[in-house]
Amino acid sequence: MKHFFSISDVTDLKGIVAEAIELKKTISNFSSLGKGKTIGLIFFNSSLRTRLSTQKAAINLGMSVIVMNVGSDGWKLEMEDGAIMNGDAAEHIKDAARVMGAYCDIIAVRSFAGLKDRKKDYSEEVLKSFMKYSGVPVVNLESSTLHPLQSLADLITIEEYKKVQRPKVVLTWAPHPKALPQAVPNSFVQWMKNADVDFVVTHPEGYELAPEFMEGVTVTNDQNNAFKDADFIYAKNWSSYQSYGQILNTDPAWTVSSEKMALTNNAKFMHCLPVRRNVVVTDEVLDADYSIIIPEAKNRVTSAQVVLKRILENL
Amino acid sequence: MKHFFSISDVTDLKGIVAEAIELKKTISNFSSLGKGKTIGLIFFNSSLRTRLSTQKAAINLGMSVIVMNVGSDGWKLEMEDGAIMNGDAAEHIKDAARVMGAYCDIIAVRSFAGLKDRKKDYSEEVLKSFMKYSGVPVVNLESSTLHPLQSLADLITIEEYKKVQRPKVVLTWAPHPKALPQAVPNSFVQWMKNADVDFVVTHPEGYELAPEFMEGVTVTNDQNNAFKDADFIYAKNWSSYQSYGQILNTDPAWTVSSEKMALTNNAKFMHCLPVRRNVVVTDEVLDADYSIIIPEAKNRVTSAQVVLKRILENL
Amino acid sequence: MKHFFSISDVTDLKGIVAEAIELKKTISNFSSLGKGKTIGLIFFNSSLRTRLSTQKAAINLGMSVIVMNVGSDGWKLEMEDGAIMNGDAAEHIKDAARVMGAYCDIIAVRSFAGLKDRKKDYSEEVLKSFMKYSGVPVVNLESSTLHPLQSLADLITIEEYKKVQRPKVVLTWAPHPKALPQAVPNSFVQWMKNADVDFVVTHPEGYELAPEFMEGVTVTNDQNNAFKDADFIYAKNWSSYQSYGQILNTDPAWTVSSEKMALTNNAKFMHCLPVRRNVVVTDEVLDADYSIIIPEAKNRVTSAQVVLKRILENL
Repeated sequence: MKHFFSISDVTDLKGIVAEAIELKKTISNFSSLGKGKTIGLIFFNSSLRTRLSTQKAAINLGMSVIVMNVGSDGWKLEMEDGAIMNGDAAEHIKDAARVMGAYCDIIAVRSFAGLKDRKKDYSEEVLKSFMKYSGVPVVNLESSTLHPLQSLADLITIEEYKKVQRPKVVLTWAPHPKALPQAVPNSFVQWMKNADVDFVVTHPEGYELAPEFMEGVTVTNDQNNAFKDADFIYAKNWSSYQSYGQILNTDPAWTVSSEKMALTNNAKFMHCLPVRRNVVVTDEVLDADYSIIIPEAKNRVTSAQVVLKRILENL
Repeated sequence: MKHFFSISDVTDLKGIVAEAIELKKTISNFSSLGKGKTIGLIFFNSSLRTRLSTQKAAINLGMSVIVMNVGSDGWKLEMEDGAIMNGDAAEHIKDAARVMGAYCDIIAVRSFAGLKDRKKDYSEEVLKSFMKYSGVPVVNLESSTLHPLQSLADLITIEEYKKVQRPKVVLTWAPHPKALPQAVPNSFVQWMKNADVDFVVTHPEGYELAPEFMEGVTVTNDQNNAFKDADFIYAKNWSSYQSYGQILNTDPAWTVSSEKMALTNNAKFMHCLPVRRNVVVTDEVLDADYSIIIPEAKNRVTSAQVVLKRILENL
Repeated sequence: MKHFFSISDVTDLKGIVAEAIELKKTISNFSSLGKGKTIGLIFFNSSLRTRLSTQKAAINLGMSVIVMNVGSDGWKLEMEDGAIMNGDAAEHIKDAARVMGAYCDIIAVRSFAGLKDRKKDYSEEVLKSFMKYSGVPVVNLESSTLHPLQSLADLITIEEYKKVQRPKVVLTWAPHPKALPQAVPNSFVQWMKNADVDFVVTHPEGYELAPEFMEGVTVTNDQNNAFKDADFIYAKNWSSYQSYGQILNTDPAWTVSSEKMALTNNAKFMHCLPVRRNVVVTDEVLDADYSIIIPEAKNRVTSAQVVLKRILENL
């Protein structure tokens, strides 16, 4: 593996899931794999799970970790090629990326969508600049449109908890007081489409995801119907792609409740966290036995571990 | 040792002090004790001594350290059970704690009193949530009402510098321009009451500490009298417990000066730092030979070391 | 080496450059030199290169690294001796330095000039306080008036890229929208004056550097003439020393362009970064084959490595 930007960097979906699960048991055999290697974690945005789990995975593989919070530790970066830099930005991303690449063996980057300029967000300029200029492997810690370490962790979790060969997995939109990016649902769709699952997406009108992700995916505006026979319910809010970055709906009827979970085939409940309790989903669901949000979060180490292992083996 | 929340987690006060002092000499024998183990340091508030000394202690024991500044690195946490989370907080503490516990073998948490709602502060909701939900040992890096790593360091320092078997130790309130929590004095009282010392607390009227800490403790409003025959003067400001979080007094007559120190039995001067020079205590005192503030600060590594060692041995 | 505050701490300029270049190849032999030793990196200001490269160098030497952002992680420090500390500052630098020194084997500090009070900035109170009070070796990560790790990296880079025994090196002022400190040019002058190079400084009127640095240095206001026969062009903005901290000139005629580079003897282009593209220097120059800004940045690890090695050998 060179970069880990999206599912396209994985050629063997079943293979990487199996390897990740196996690696949970054998990780101590790989505690010297990353010896003498440094990973730089670059955060343009806040992070808890990603910050901790990626550090933990790197440490497990014997790497040194350097964390950099752009904005608070550093300064604003210029993105535009050819810009006359007499404004706020003190450094061009092409120079920052080249320098970071000069100091680190692997760079991992978090940079959220601004949700103002769709074309810009979907061009993935930050991650693409790092891949173009840094000269080292780049890992996506959630970019404007994708969150592949989360999706891989989700798929690993589904593999571990499924009771049938081909489970029914439902991604449901749920309400939220703030406008959120589409990175998690986009990415989840990418991975589920390619996994051995029956996949359904349900959301209110106006919340259609970008067409480039949705080809061939079953979509319905009828949440109750979608939940029928589901083995996994994956809840997530996102803001509108059409009316870009807008909140069009806050209807609590979309909140995932135990009544709704009762419609399913004893489905497990999943969410990438952080989650707004009693807005996105009720306490009752989150704290139920069928809620697997903590094993899912724990698998963020699992997914980071297998990705870093593959990159290290390829260095 | 499971958690280290307060003195209640220590069953052998003399034993832990002796072990801590011995460990200063033998720490290099324990540099592999924490191998493969990760401690997460979670800061809801600023920190210098605690941040550096706890990291140093963990490194000395061979642990990996992950530091997380909640607020700047992460986001606001919801504390209330059953809350409908449509406000500022992006994650409930019960979820954050469970996730952090999933990534770390030990979690250490700093979370100061807000000084607005006494009942809430004294319920210790943040530390108690971490102990309840994280599933791993939790170390108190100063909570709303206690600072046990400081108090243990203080007791170690007194043991090292005392000239008589049972020294007289005086905790004196001193003025300060800002309202400060009661965590350090509360905690100091807890540890001194159980140590082999004659203990006196002196403060102006209105600065009585919480009754739950003060049973059987000698208190006087006469600072000069309290200083007589003292072997150790421990200065610290705190805001009022009765008029919760209020500053009732800024009288410079309470500032610890060399004139006041002259009333003592050649007492050593102690303070947990940071200290407002020439407000809490004069330069002359802080810079005198009898000031042991730096060995005291250095013992923050000593106290963290013995606590982490005991927790690691019990994992 | 005790401290590394300025060039005065280096007794053998040729020797340290040769050692640094050799160390690039042999660094893996020194991966245990810093075992059990901790370096504290104290940042009063933002940092990217210095933050990452110094950590990398310390890790390469087997040290543990603790990073502390004063201001965001900690609190404001009082600088004035004898101050009555009833204002913003929660701790005196003399106490903070002594405590940090108690926890770390080496302390490295970044503290920029405020550019308001020249006498205060040029007194180097922060770095000098750390050297006076911490009790451990102190490394300058850019102080109010000097940036010696940068200058050493620059000299190493010149040594690696020079084609003649004694190259002509030109330091040219260039425009910038913000008032910047004089630390980089001051320091570059110090190191170049003592190196085996022909050295010329060029800047507009009013940008004369402090006399204490400029004795015996060739200065001209004619940039084009300075560039003639140059082997290395080193561009950097700084604010006025005479009209302290002021921007007197933003004339784009001083921007380094390929037309200007054509006046030289096929000179290499250098800059310490971050750089404002198309303000300080054009894209065309920065992205040309003769631009060696990335190897120069990479040598920040090289210079930090040799400095830390020498300090560790002397501990």
